[in-house]
Amino acid sequence: MLIYDALVDDRLSAQVRPDCELIPVGKRGGLPSTAQAEINHLLIHHCQGGKQVVRLKSGDPFIFGRATAEIQALRGAGCDFEVIPGLSSALAGPLLAGIPLTDPVLSRGFGVFTAHEPEALNWAALAQLPTLVLLMGGRQLGAIVAQLLNHGRSPYIPIAIIRWAGQPQQAVIASTLLEIEQRSQEHMAQAGWNSLSPCIIVVGEVVSLGEFLRPGPRP
Amino acid sequence: MLIYDALVDDRLSAQVRPDCELIPVGKRGGLPSTAQAEINHLLIHHCQGGKQVVRLKSGDPFIFGRATAEIQALRGAGCDFEVIPGLSSALAGPLLAGIPLTDPVLSRGFGVFTAHEPEALNWAALAQLPTLVLLMGGRQLGAIVAQLLNHGRSPYIPIAIIRWAGQPQQAVIASTLLEIEQRSQEHMAQAGWNSLSPCIIVVGEVVSLGEFLRPGPRP
Repeated sequence: MLIYDALVDDRLSAQVRPDCELIPVGKRGGLPSTAQAEINHLLIHHCQGGKQVVRLKSGDPFIFGRATAEIQALRGAGCDFEVIPGLSSALAGPLLAGIPLTDPVLSRGFGVFTAHEPEALNWAALAQLPTLVLLMGGRQLGAIVAQLLNHGRSPYIPIAIIRWAGQPQQAVIASTLLEIEQRSQEHMAQAGWNSLSPCIIVVGEVVSLGEFLRPGPRP
Repeated sequence: MLIYDALVDDRLSAQVRPDCELIPVGKRGGLPSTAQAEINHLLIHHCQGGKQVVRLKSGDPFIFGRATAEIQALRGAGCDFEVIPGLSSALAGPLLAGIPLTDPVLSRGFGVFTAHEPEALNWAALAQLPTLVLLMGGRQLGAIVAQLLNHGRSPYIPIAIIRWAGQPQQAVIASTLLEIEQRSQEHMAQAGWNSLSPCIIVVGEVVSLGEFLRPGPRP
């Protein structure tokens, strides 16, 4: 029994045994997402029915993954479970774009935050981190840049917007805080994008290492 | 050709084809680690000799992984390469201890820093992050606690020290900033440890979610 996010790559759900039941949940192309209560119910129902249930999510289930609600439901119902780590797009996305989040000289660490509600974040702290990764910030680029500049980040700090990380259509828009809005507008017009979302935003000197670490021109 | 960190699990290096040449590099049990220049030379030498070379590291190669020196050497020598993401212990360790690094209410993000030289970190910023993961901080616990308290973190904020994450001997010491030093001393005495290293330290309210998210008592 595989209960999987609709965002999961089809090649994964294709690897199950032929007799495995597949239940897609979560958002897909404009349709409403399955309510969390219904997902919890599915997990418990099939677990108590004696099935071996795999709940497959994209990325790391403990990083913005909403796994806690499901786990608490399972515990409440007395269902055994195990959590398996996955690759978070917050780390794998920059890597696939050639950007290391740490560097012995430039960055002894990094922060990862969700930016869909930028007013909820402590920008005074975030602006002081050597490297900042922002998820779900594609529609908030203007607010993000303004907050970082207002809190003392230099306008010449490198910033990259990574879209379709790891996919054949991967795109990286690299610029500075000063110019990223204009560059991204140009890129969107050229590429025919309506929106930057979904994307991963990386701010910090490490972004400039990307130029030296990416493999040569792709075919 | 597999050039691998000695820290890599033997079960991985055992999966290669019988005719694959294995070269361990890096630190192992008190012996000096292979010099970076020698690792770079090995990679280039075998690449230019026509071998398919896999450089296997622990964790995510772009998170405190020192991969950049090797990549720059490969580029300088005109060797093609590809970087494959891995699971960082900074994220997988807390997950395996039942601690989510984000939570819709408690934490919209997290920071990951290396703490072996705590005086090099910007504690004013780090103390304001909802969740902080510190690697290589086992010998600096006293300094870490003092810096966080001095920069306004409450003494009652939960903190966990995770050792041997994901191994059968996994241990989690959970307490508060106020009491973690005493608890860890007690734990070390009881468990016969000389040191907390290597360990992963997590600071933040999310640590208390661990109690509710870990599977039942382990055998």
